[in-house]
Amino acid sequence: GTTFLLSCPEDLETVLDRFVQELQYAKVIGFDCEWTSKSGKPQPVALLQLATVSGVCLLIRLSHYRGPLPVRLQSILSDASYIKVGVGPMEDANKLLHDYGIVVSGCVDLRSLAVRTKETKNSLGLKGLAQSYLGVTMNKQKHIQCSAWDAPSLSQEQIDYAANDALIAAKVFSVIARSKLESNVHVASALNNAVNNTLWSIVSSYCQGLVDCKFKQ
Amino acid sequence: GTTFLLSCPEDLETVLDRFVQELQYAKVIGFDCEWTSKSGKPQPVALLQLATVSGVCLLIRLSHYRGPLPVRLQSILSDASYIKVGVGPMEDANKLLHDYGIVVSGCVDLRSLAVRTKETKNSLGLKGLAQSYLGVTMNKQKHIQCSAWDAPSLSQEQIDYAANDALIAAKVFSVIARSKLESNVHVASALNNAVNNTLWSIVSSYCQGLVDCKFKQ
Ligand code: NA
Ligand code: NA
Ligand code: NA
Ligand code: NA
Repeated sequence: GTTFLLSCPEDLETVLDRFVQELQYAKVIGFDCEWTSKSGKPQPVALLQLATVSGVCLLIRLSHYRGPLPVRLQSILSDASYIKVGVGPMEDANKLLHDYGIVVSGCVDLRSLAVRTKETKNSLGLKGLAQSYLGVTMNKQKHIQCSAWDAPSLSQEQIDYAANDALIAAKVFSVIARSKLESNVHVASALNNAVNNTLWSIVSSYCQGLVDCKFKQ
Repeated sequence: GTTFLLSCPEDLETVLDRFVQELQYAKVIGFDCEWTSKSGKPQPVALLQLATVSGVCLLIRLSHYRGPLPVRLQSILSDASYIKVGVGPMEDANKLLHDYGIVVSGCVDLRSLAVRTKETKNSLGLKGLAQSYLGVTMNKQKHIQCSAWDAPSLSQEQIDYAANDALIAAKVFSVIARSKLESNVHVASALNNAVNNTLWSIVSSYCQGLVDCKFKQ
């Protein structure tokens, strides 16, 4: 996977093609936000984290970003057919709307999905879900969690921490989805049909130039 | 596989649903015809053999069949997107048109496909192709090949022989197609996409009732 730290429209435009391409088949976005509190008062969202299941992560520094987000990205964020997965994503979505007027629809709370699978032994925070579904122990250090997300430049620790939250959310979703798929008796035949349809379009192309033509040695 | 010997419209209608269903994903029909010669003069086609890749074979006794073929079957026979595979299928198609006004389009000669694969060591008759692609030795006995295909009732030997020709044609096609698929570098990614698309439609259904809803324990 690749993580992009983005503070200006030009940089975001440059990587957006790649991000959109990765979403082509799995319309799932690991979604998280970071902000700082000053004297107990939450400041505007400083960092918006968006990750694909395939491991591409955008870290958009809203505290430094000037102007509106690219229309293409706004469309994806407001389009509920792109699922935004995380722990408490609605709260982040509401704060983005309040702080910046950014509309995020299609939020799915991983805890709700996890409760449906009834397999969770660990707690339902992202750390617990990562342990349950990925076997990964997240290093949720308070001093990073509560660090200055609007600082002039972010430390590597902050970058890794922030990217990880969105990336892990996407991966937890994909593992839950996969485990459900494997227990779904209709999936095997649906997959088989999809494969056959594709094979057929390829196979029939082999006959180009031969249909209704007599064989000539 | 199952072979159906059919002499009347009622019987053909009964099995046509099954046949059409088998064609849903692999629109390939192993195609052959049999007829008798009397005093060196070819008689009208007596038997029309149609086989799916999955092994369902219709043996339609045109010498005994009264009235036109079902419209659904006529449509499939005249629709070139359903590929009719055999050795010299155009000759059979022309004879069906001449003898009964039955239109068959979408003929693909297995010899033309075999020549394209450049792997054939054996002769290009169906027997040679079966040996090359299926490792099967066909028992092409002249006394059956030249038997009375318009006899009041067909022997088990005739039935097996006739069905085998159409079934083997369909299977040779599917093996050639598969060998081409495996050597096609674009196939893996096309398949992957098809699988992902299907998975996606299933996966997104898991989120029904959860989208943009707050998590409640
Ligand atoms: Na969050
Ligand atoms: Na976070
Ligand atoms: Na023939
Ligand atoms: Na034959």
